[in-house]
Amino acid sequence: MAAANELNPTARFLMGPGPSDVHPRVLQAMATPMIGHLDPQFIVIMDELKQMLRELFRTRNELTFAVSATASAGMETCFVNLLEPGDEAVVCVNGVFGNRMSDIVGRCGAKLTRVDAPWGQPIDPAALKKALDGRRPKLVAVVHAETSTGLCQPLEEISRLAHEAGALFLVDAVTSLGGMDVRTDEWGIDAIYSGTQKCISAPPGLSPVSFSPRAVQAMESRKAANKVQSWYLDLGLLRTYWQGAKRAYHHTAPVSMIYGLHEALRIIFEEGLEARFERHRRNHELLRAGLEELGFEFVVAPEYRLPMLNAVRIPEPLEDAPVRKRLLEEYNIEIGAGLGEFAGKVWRIGLMGCSCTPNHVNMLLAALRQIQQDR
Amino acid sequence: MAAANELNPTARFLMGPGPSDVHPRVLQAMATPMIGHLDPQFIVIMDELKQMLRELFRTRNELTFAVSATASAGMETCFVNLLEPGDEAVVCVNGVFGNRMSDIVGRCGAKLTRVDAPWGQPIDPAALKKALDGRRPKLVAVVHAETSTGLCQPLEEISRLAHEAGALFLVDAVTSLGGMDVRTDEWGIDAIYSGTQKCISAPPGLSPVSFSPRAVQAMESRKAANKVQSWYLDLGLLRTYWQGAKRAYHHTAPVSMIYGLHEALRIIFEEGLEARFERHRRNHELLRAGLEELGFEFVVAPEYRLPMLNAVRIPEPLEDAPVRKRLLEEYNIEIGAGLGEFAGKVWRIGLMGCSCTPNHVNMLLAALRQIQQDR
Repeated sequence: MAAANELNPTARFLMGPGPSDVHPRVLQAMATPMIGHLDPQFIVIMDELKQMLRELFRTRNELTFAVSATASAGMETCFVNLLEPGDEAVVCVNGVFGNRMSDIVGRCGAKLTRVDAPWGQPIDPAALKKALDGRRPKLVAVVHAETSTGLCQPLEEISRLAHEAGALFLVDAVTSLGGMDVRTDEWGIDAIYSGTQKCISAPPGLSPVSFSPRAVQAMESRKAANKVQSWYLDLGLLRTYWQGAKRAYHHTAPVSMIYGLHEALRIIFEEGLEARFERHRRNHELLRAGLEELGFEFVVAPEYRLPMLNAVRIPEPLEDAPVRKRLLEEYNIEIGAGLGEFAGKVWRIGLMGCSCTPNHVNMLLAALRQIQQDR
Repeated sequence: MAAANELNPTARFLMGPGPSDVHPRVLQAMATPMIGHLDPQFIVIMDELKQMLRELFRTRNELTFAVSATASAGMETCFVNLLEPGDEAVVCVNGVFGNRMSDIVGRCGAKLTRVDAPWGQPIDPAALKKALDGRRPKLVAVVHAETSTGLCQPLEEISRLAHEAGALFLVDAVTSLGGMDVRTDEWGIDAIYSGTQKCISAPPGLSPVSFSPRAVQAMESRKAANKVQSWYLDLGLLRTYWQGAKRAYHHTAPVSMIYGLHEALRIIFEEGLEARFERHRRNHELLRAGLEELGFEFVVAPEYRLPMLNAVRIPEPLEDAPVRKRLLEEYNIEIGAGLGEFAGKVWRIGLMGCSCTPNHVNMLLAALRQIQQDR
């Protein structure tokens, strides 16, 4: 066969919706020599990882670990372990990822009730309250940080309503975790999942998840006939590997990915959570000011904007694909295209983890200014 | 919080059932700086990867790529895309992984017919023929290289019987691929999956899969009401990212894992498939001779032995766990424990990919000799 080329990708500045830039120490960790997934030394690394994830999720949940696949599999893990056929689920939808949750609910054979809001606007608690009226759903699910719109959903009121209806509260924290506060226990979250390639700034490939004792109980109370539809994501099996004195083989853990996430979490705690969140807010402000000066408008109202994912309408006469292409080819800067109804109209500019620095902001603004002047 | 320790695992020689030793070039590839999963340069890397996987699987199947999770998820991918509720599936079981297939068939809501053989013995085509009599199953599934027993299952007769019954032929090649011949097209295999951490010698975290045109057709002929139960593993969605002129976002691909697999495949084709298979046979012979001299007996009859996974009964007076512990702690050699009915009675010695050298064999034999003499 024709031999494939040596890997030689151009160095990029990753300012899209993820992956974000990865710290050299994390890249180095990825290259750590392999050890076995049942090696006592690896068990120690897993235990440290679980403890750091608990600190990051701000939870005491025993069942806190990383699913061996990307964030979308973390989403699926939460739904397939909690929902049984015929259960009711209420999903709040105001972007791509709420839609994806709804799709998965259907694949679980559960009954879906959607609470919709326009893209870029928060879910109205009153609408949720109405939807819950007379219902006893198994769970209420919502996206904390909607990566398709840049919206930050306030969670406390939604959580209260979910619990009043006797439901579990399930949250997507893929884009928020590591870049802003995620208070799993304080906010009454029963099941939460995230990804590694956003504000944690590790490579994509793992999904941190955490289940509250109530969620674990729901999982343990499944009817015997209703096995979790995914063997790979069955937490009842997975936790025999991640928990307990004796670790049983389930699947072969992605050792290098665990190395990378472990190092990324160490870096997060060296910086400190508060300092890290403040850095995300500060660089968001810098970006906002610069973009507004260039004539960009944000999709989301100020009080609901995410710091790490900035969705802006593409101002005339800039064209979507040609400008993104030029940013990538001339400046090596990647920004994100709009998804779904925002395709062609919106850009998504990420300031996540290692990609969240004043230098990133300044480079992008200068490049955009240059491109505008060239017209 | 108490900061986690710096990663500092001891260098091991990995001679268990996987992961195997990873080549320094692959480790280096894992540390390649991140680029976006939709970057045109990444699309080229994916295309090269697909082509190399086709060469390795010896197939022309267009739908050949790597699932973004470990080999067990590759197994699940094959079953959930091909089986619909109520379908019949025939699974050949003579070890842990045939059992796992059976479990997944149940989770698909399909009707299971098992064809069992004792662990360590091949599936008897006559038994399969009998099981197929009067049945029109959707698929017949079998494990090529049973990692729990070290058995190599001849596939051609099974394939013929499956196709005569109008079934698709599904094969687990997790442990065989990259270490011995796997002739997907010639052997009439319709769906096949593997892992990266065995004879390919990349880190665990991806699962190469390939679907024949017939399997693709079966997948496309699903009833509209029967969505694939896993969103993450739904090939109808996944292939919009891996195939075609315009690549659509599905999930964020594990970029670093793809880098690692790409480099591992390049190394495989530099060595050449025939030379690589011969190396596995030669070192297996060296190990066999040495182990027999030390009083070990193989679980599997000579004509059905895998070269890369050597299952041997633990001879008296050696004790399972203490000896494995000593091999790990004193010699930094990992070998595998027995699974299921072989627990405590059998060791599984891997000679996979980069772990398949005369030096590995000599080190292990010398260490075992030393441990025996110490008693």
